[in-house]
Amino acid sequence: MDDLILHEDPISGNCYKIRLVAAYLGLPIERRLYYIRKGETRTPEFLATVNANGRIPVLQIGDRFLPESSAACFYLADGSPLIPDDRFDRADMLRWMFFEQYHHEPNVATLRFWLAYLGKDRLSAAQAASLPAKRAAGEAALALMDAHLAGRDFFVGGTLSLADIALYAYTHVAGEGGFDLDRWPAIRAWLARVAVMPGYIPMNS
Amino acid sequence: MDDLILHEDPISGNCYKIRLVAAYLGLPIERRLYYIRKGETRTPEFLATVNANGRIPVLQIGDRFLPESSAACFYLADGSPLIPDDRFDRADMLRWMFFEQYHHEPNVATLRFWLAYLGKDRLSAAQAASLPAKRAAGEAALALMDAHLAGRDFFVGGTLSLADIALYAYTHVAGEGGFDLDRWPAIRAWLARVAVMPGYIPMNS
Repeated sequence: MDDLILHEDPISGNCYKIRLVAAYLGLPIERRLYYIRKGETRTPEFLATVNANGRIPVLQIGDRFLPESSAACFYLADGSPLIPDDRFDRADMLRWMFFEQYHHEPNVATLRFWLAYLGKDRLSAAQAASLPAKRAAGEAALALMDAHLAGRDFFVGGTLSLADIALYAYTHVAGEGGFDLDRWPAIRAWLARVAVMPGYIPMNS
Repeated sequence: MDDLILHEDPISGNCYKIRLVAAYLGLPIERRLYYIRKGETRTPEFLATVNANGRIPVLQIGDRFLPESSAACFYLADGSPLIPDDRFDRADMLRWMFFEQYHHEPNVATLRFWLAYLGKDRLSAAQAASLPAKRAAGEAALALMDAHLAGRDFFVGGTLSLADIALYAYTHVAGEGGFDLDRWPAIRAWLARVAVMPGYIPMNS
């Protein structure tokens, strides 16, 4: 495989997903740090070379750049046991990864960023107005995960897959966004299961 | 392949994506219609059997249910030319599919639903407050697509892939959400290219 470079911000769970996949697979990955809050992903150089969308993470593979955390995870894990062999399970893994980006991250991760990093007093009027809906949608996503995990060890097919890693990243720090994980015992048991898999690294590593 | 049933609402571009993939591949697919605006995807029966998340589309494969439009597209196209053989291109296809669900659909599709179906006067205060940000984010997504398509026939690898189908669905009706596609000539040329591919079916078919 070509040299791997992760363009990232250490506070981002989307970046952590990629580092976690690389760690489980034992793939070395170089890290280039940017601070979103300082605008470092919106400079003309970043937009011209790394990602015209002005966002991290971006996985650099040799001289090619791959934005979107879930796509980067898929690239790293392609052909590995982190992606199920079974056709339905493979699609079902993607189902949970799309669920994460559509129903979970915009609520659970956004509230974490707003409350723990940006600060509630610094929200725009539109952001503040959307807070109750994001709280409800985040709780609904967590409740759905908890119901699915009751009686299951992992999201798909009985073993760790990219679906677990994608959902782990922001779920395990959901408390920073004001979500009380004690309400969802199956989630708590699953978080503990993911965190003892061989190769696991914590978010702040 | 097991019998395929699509649980859908005809006005949804997310549902159309799946029908379009099936049409390109020549796969027969039965349709079960639900009307989102009448609450038909939130009934106890729907939640218990089709999707606990209360949303369509859901692709039923035999007696198994697969929510999330992009995952359903991947299931149908797995092993077909709509998914690139090359490892980077395959991940890059997913990159555009995740881009669509994160940066495009919540803005371009949501404004279409709000303005063309729900009606601007019926928006909640929070929805109305978010409208300018959604307009700007939708325009940014379209501008990024236009810049990427300049000099390219399709999003990934020079041929039609799921990336094109995922992005086509709501882009070709973006005008219904007040987006002026005349501003993005590379998008218009690409839309015309997708619409003449063998097997193409229109959204209202």
